[in-house]
Amino acid sequence: MRTRAALAVQAGKPLVVTEVNLEGPKAFEVLVEIKATGLCHTDEFTRSGDDPEGLFPAILGHEGAGVVVEVGPGVTSLKPGDHVIPLYTPECRQCEYCLHPKTNLCQAIRSTQGQGLMPDGTSRFTTLDGEKIHHYMGCSTFSNYTVLPEIALAKIREDAPFDIVCYIGCGVTTGIGAVINTAKVEIGSRAIVFGLGGIGLNVIQGLRLAGADQIVGVDLNPSKKAIAERFGMTDFVNPSEVDGDLVAYLVNLTKGGADYTFDATGNVKVMRTALESAHKGWGESIIIGVAPAGAEISTRPFQLVTGRNWRGTAFGGARGRTDVPKIVDWYMQGKIEIDPMITHRLSLDEINHGFDLMHEGKSIRAVVVY
Amino acid sequence: MRTRAALAVQAGKPLVVTEVNLEGPKAFEVLVEIKATGLCHTDEFTRSGDDPEGLFPAILGHEGAGVVVEVGPGVTSLKPGDHVIPLYTPECRQCEYCLHPKTNLCQAIRSTQGQGLMPDGTSRFTTLDGEKIHHYMGCSTFSNYTVLPEIALAKIREDAPFDIVCYIGCGVTTGIGAVINTAKVEIGSRAIVFGLGGIGLNVIQGLRLAGADQIVGVDLNPSKKAIAERFGMTDFVNPSEVDGDLVAYLVNLTKGGADYTFDATGNVKVMRTALESAHKGWGESIIIGVAPAGAEISTRPFQLVTGRNWRGTAFGGARGRTDVPKIVDWYMQGKIEIDPMITHRLSLDEINHGFDLMHEGKSIRAVVVY
Ligand SMILES: NC(=O)c1ccc[n+]([C@@H]2O[C@H](COP(=O)([O-])OP(=O)(O)OC[C@H]3O[C@@H](n4cnc5c(N)ncnc54)[C@H](O)[C@@H]3O)[C@@H](O)[C@H]2O)c1
Ligand SMILES: NC(=O)c1ccc[n+]([C@@H]2O[C@H](COP(=O)([O-])OP(=O)(O)OC[C@H]3O[C@@H](n4cnc5c(N)ncnc54)[C@H](O)[C@@H]3O)[C@@H](O)[C@H]2O)c1
Repeated sequence: MRTRAALAVQAGKPLVVTEVNLEGPKAFEVLVEIKATGLCHTDEFTRSGDDPEGLFPAILGHEGAGVVVEVGPGVTSLKPGDHVIPLYTPECRQCEYCLHPKTNLCQAIRSTQGQGLMPDGTSRFTTLDGEKIHHYMGCSTFSNYTVLPEIALAKIREDAPFDIVCYIGCGVTTGIGAVINTAKVEIGSRAIVFGLGGIGLNVIQGLRLAGADQIVGVDLNPSKKAIAERFGMTDFVNPSEVDGDLVAYLVNLTKGGADYTFDATGNVKVMRTALESAHKGWGESIIIGVAPAGAEISTRPFQLVTGRNWRGTAFGGARGRTDVPKIVDWYMQGKIEIDPMITHRLSLDEINHGFDLMHEGKSIRAVVVY
Repeated sequence: MRTRAALAVQAGKPLVVTEVNLEGPKAFEVLVEIKATGLCHTDEFTRSGDDPEGLFPAILGHEGAGVVVEVGPGVTSLKPGDHVIPLYTPECRQCEYCLHPKTNLCQAIRSTQGQGLMPDGTSRFTTLDGEKIHHYMGCSTFSNYTVLPEIALAKIREDAPFDIVCYIGCGVTTGIGAVINTAKVEIGSRAIVFGLGGIGLNVIQGLRLAGADQIVGVDLNPSKKAIAERFGMTDFVNPSEVDGDLVAYLVNLTKGGADYTFDATGNVKVMRTALESAHKGWGESIIIGVAPAGAEISTRPFQLVTGRNWRGTAFGGARGRTDVPKIVDWYMQGKIEIDPMITHRLSLDEINHGFDLMHEGKSIRAVVVY
């Protein structure tokens, strides 16, 4: 079949909206009609050429929601008409990782996914000239129709709006999951969130959901204050307005250091500040941000010997097929808010404008609605 | 009263065995006759002048065992004749830290202890010329008699031999506790221990006690192999005999990386190797070693984002008054071994020879028996 898609032809170039060829689903694969997709920093990281592992040509996008159109042989858990969210971290429920209680990093299709291919080592996408197009993070939601492995699809309820819950495919789950699955924040905790972008705001609302007493937000951009307060932030700190040492300021503000701190900036210096403003004895610092290639974190080991814990999280520690449907339910029940974060809705033809909005810091999330 | 002690007169100089004045216990303090004391690297760190916070003159030593001679007003949990192990990490059971489930770092007397003083801000020791002598780590076990706060003494059973269980005052508890309290190693785990000295060997036996399946020991000194095997090591790796990348070698040896890794060297490069040879998704790396002043650990944050956890431990995460008596019981029951680690017994007059043995790598633990 043919489908419309935004094609990343070359690193650093704008996406090209065009028709491409899409093969139908093979064994254990599913054809999905994508109804909406968010634009995430990770897509832009690859589009821009900053990602040393980026492959081209490719169809980017990994934060979508849609409807099953057709299933390949062997697919048992999904049928045409099911509403689904694609998962860049699949959940096979069989590999050593899925069976381990401490991780969500299913490795079942890791190596082919990293090569931009389906599990059988081939691509379903080609250009109209017959050139192979790479899949991206196993999802390629910047195509109106796409093919995914069954294990990379979370089945969700049918009354959930696509243009909102697509954001659960990455940002919402990453932020809320970092709090709930990775940090396991207890009621009454004090926390600091560095970076109040699309991820940080979801960390903030995750902390509110977990019953944190103090939720400090740190951002260089003062315009983030109002929206972060709306999601539960109790204290705002602009580092450029702090005289002297930021760590000392934050330790004082949190009465000895925070129980939990989160980096949602991707800046390795901020990651160090986040660790060191965690409480002596028990403070845990969670790295969510993705640093530039080659950048390193550092600190004195004494920070850890005196009881701080340095960790990280990918996709919020969520097991996608199990956890994503629950988060959709939480949205539908009003336990979490997403609507105010979807600041822009675009057509596929306007997708490059979405990346401009991201660069200008004007959007929290821009969503392409097909 | 007067007591014989090994006095650290000046940084970098040998200890001077001499008589000193000792005042009796004040309120909530206890006079203890030290029967035996181990010589630990931390004592040597301070004696040598490498410790930037070292105070002189001082009576070092923090790994002792002895008998209560006299108690000051207000002391309720100890009486003359009780057998005790001094605790450089006290346990007041009242402070914010003691009441927190995740830490053992009681802060009740932290600031005065750091200044080499008793909790009332004075010292009990003076030279025969009347000069103030600093206490050390709240213990000063290189004195035949010493005064400690009640909260810094663990009461132990009376049939335990002083020249063995003194080692539980630091090395044994640090190593075993890192496994049991900090890492909480599960049965069947794979682990790597870097550094097979007095601490590392106790990590090894802690892992055996916890039921680890694979216990890899890493040391540059091949003479450590035999003794480490005796304590439960299953695989020995000498980094100088590994061709190529040590991390890759260890990941392969542990079939994907270890569930738990421990640094017991104090070398920041080794700490990085320890982190990176922990298993993706769930591996935890515990820093025990104390690094030189100013040294920093570093790694790519991706190591943490993909699920590794970087932590540290002080005194093995043990709450001394609660846990040390249990470890003494384990020794008496034969659950753990200590005897083969006590390689040298010295008189107080021979204490400087004990530090020579440490430097020459000839002793695991040298113990001064009074
Ligand atoms: N671990 C994961 O699974 C995962 C998933 C998605 C995204 N991410 C990463 O999370 C990070 C945040 O993503 P986002 O979409 O929220 O980005 P964003 O650009 O929307 O937000 C980043 C925020 O950080 C602020 N900031 C930048 N430098 C700062 C500094 N030095 N001090 C304080 N604030 C600072 C910015 O003003 C901005 O508000 C990115 O690195 C992204 O790659 C990680
Ligand atoms: N965190 C705590 O509460 C605590 C308590 C006591 C001691 N310590 C620290 O633990 C560390 C170990 O103490 P110890 O008494 O066992 O010391 P040790 O000198 O007896 O043992 C260190 C071992 O490490 C080995 N080693 C050195 N460099 C190495 C390298 N690059 N690779 C592999 N092996 C190497 C040595 O050969 C030696 O066998 C020290 O740093 C000490 O200060 C920490």
